[in-house]
Amino acid sequence: MRVNAYAALAAGQPLTPTTIERREVGPNDVLIAIEYAGICHSDIHTVNGEWGPQPFPIVPGHEIVGTVAKVGSDVTRHQVGDRVGVGCMVNSCGECTSCRKGDEQYCLAGMVPTYAGTDRDGTTTQGGYATHVVVDADYVLSVPASLDPAAAAPLLCAGITTYAPLRGWGAGPGKKVAIVGLGGLGHMAVKIAHALGAEVTVLSQSLKKQEDGLRLGADHYHATSDPETFRALAGRFDLILNTVSARIDLDAYLGLLAVDGTLVNVGAPAEPLSVNVFSLIGGRRSLAGSMIGGIAPTQEMLDFCAEHNIGAEVEVISADKVNAAYERVLASDVRYRFVIDIRTLA
Amino acid sequence: MRVNAYAALAAGQPLTPTTIERREVGPNDVLIAIEYAGICHSDIHTVNGEWGPQPFPIVPGHEIVGTVAKVGSDVTRHQVGDRVGVGCMVNSCGECTSCRKGDEQYCLAGMVPTYAGTDRDGTTTQGGYATHVVVDADYVLSVPASLDPAAAAPLLCAGITTYAPLRGWGAGPGKKVAIVGLGGLGHMAVKIAHALGAEVTVLSQSLKKQEDGLRLGADHYHATSDPETFRALAGRFDLILNTVSARIDLDAYLGLLAVDGTLVNVGAPAEPLSVNVFSLIGGRRSLAGSMIGGIAPTQEMLDFCAEHNIGAEVEVISADKVNAAYERVLASDVRYRFVIDIRTLA
Repeated sequence: MRVNAYAALAAGQPLTPTTIERREVGPNDVLIAIEYAGICHSDIHTVNGEWGPQPFPIVPGHEIVGTVAKVGSDVTRHQVGDRVGVGCMVNSCGECTSCRKGDEQYCLAGMVPTYAGTDRDGTTTQGGYATHVVVDADYVLSVPASLDPAAAAPLLCAGITTYAPLRGWGAGPGKKVAIVGLGGLGHMAVKIAHALGAEVTVLSQSLKKQEDGLRLGADHYHATSDPETFRALAGRFDLILNTVSARIDLDAYLGLLAVDGTLVNVGAPAEPLSVNVFSLIGGRRSLAGSMIGGIAPTQEMLDFCAEHNIGAEVEVISADKVNAAYERVLASDVRYRFVIDIRTLA
Repeated sequence: MRVNAYAALAAGQPLTPTTIERREVGPNDVLIAIEYAGICHSDIHTVNGEWGPQPFPIVPGHEIVGTVAKVGSDVTRHQVGDRVGVGCMVNSCGECTSCRKGDEQYCLAGMVPTYAGTDRDGTTTQGGYATHVVVDADYVLSVPASLDPAAAAPLLCAGITTYAPLRGWGAGPGKKVAIVGLGGLGHMAVKIAHALGAEVTVLSQSLKKQEDGLRLGADHYHATSDPETFRALAGRFDLILNTVSARIDLDAYLGLLAVDGTLVNVGAPAEPLSVNVFSLIGGRRSLAGSMIGGIAPTQEMLDFCAEHNIGAEVEVISADKVNAAYERVLASDVRYRFVIDIRTLA
């Protein structure tokens, strides 16, 4: 099956319209007619070659929402017409300790990313900037009907990336949680942490987005460019979720943690950071990292978001605006996620 | 009360015999006739001024075992003649969140260290290289009769420093635990982790102490100078306890952790270390720190060690050998802890 798509043909090149081949629908496969695909910063890192050599041409997109167009003979969990989603992975070994624990993202054999990855049959995966995709049914999520499908697309990456550590490290009533950065990930983190019942503080470079932050659910908002922030909030937080990929002064942020507090990184600066071990020892603090989430937690997140009426704040664009959108993401000029209306590709 | 002691009169000077004043025994105080005082690397860092300016003269020593010589009128938990111990702290505010949780070492008002600290009455604390010490009864531990008192002294710092994180991060049956470094802290960690039921691996610079390590309870022993160690053990450990104060390649050690594994630092290099956030994100790993332990956990550790017949491996010296012992500690020439027989000071 040949389908319309947007692809990067080489590192750093603008995306261009093209067609790609999708595999036949196998017994456990689902064919999805894609409605929306979010633009994640990872898409840009990848096609720009910032994360190492890539198997070009690449069709990016791992925040996918659409409807089921066809199912394989063995598929029972999805039916034609269902609204479904696909996130950052489309396969894993299914047999290792991680897979058996529902942590498919940490598959010891290596999970298969939704694009620019090598699937278990040896083919290169291609993502959601395309009219259709064929995915193993076990990696296809159910998108609750009450969620707006465009606003739901970013949940598949930005949503689970923040939900999983917030849940895992106990964000909830009585807990003080700080979200570093109010971008695509950060704005989801604020909404989710608030819905989980935590007291939420945004730590952002400036106060420019303060009004937004409070509207999205933050209780407090502080500028990290002001040294007073680090004095006033010393020892305050049980959990800090760092969503920015820029280098940060880890010791300064660790100083904001209470005893037993954890700073979890979901943003990943390419260069190493410096950390003073005393920042950890002095309060039994932890510095941790977290990567997306397993399939079951992703479904749990979607159901949680439906229950709490949470979607991303999105700007929907037509497919031909994707390169301009990339520029604006790099300029932090989006509140808070671009989503491509894939039907403009048909 | 004037008592014999060994003190450093200035940074970097050898310790010299002297006398110091101990306070009157207050209503909640215990006067301890000291029998043994361990030599901790911290003692050396402190008197050498490596941890900042200090209130000289300093009598070091925070691994203290002795017998109760006198108790204040309100003291009920200790009686004259009891064998007792004092560790790294002799006071704290008792009222903050940390103190109320039994984490006196993280007292938000600042715990009072056993020496070179400012006690709550404004006086400077002096440690265990002295014939007697007066300590608030709430900070005095009971040393079980079955423990050899010289071998018990290092439990008060090296023991609790390793026991607390091993317990806190779940070392036990079915868990793979690595101990980095086989020195004063490391050899205690091996004994305790083994007694807790974990599978214990020592990661040491060379194989020089391999025989010792296995005898002390390690199941495996590897040299970190061999790059093959980091390949062969990749992703293996649930918990790594780093007891060395030298700079280490954090990313290399983080690579030895399984998904959800934690690298806990109890050794503290003075300079900052470099860490690549991807080392954490890729396996939901944590880098943490831990500092000694609260009073109740310290008592628990002493009782645990008595139950499992665990003491430090010690070389007992007379007080006049303390400067020579410092030299040997700096040369890593001790297996595994010097303990001063304080009765040689009388």
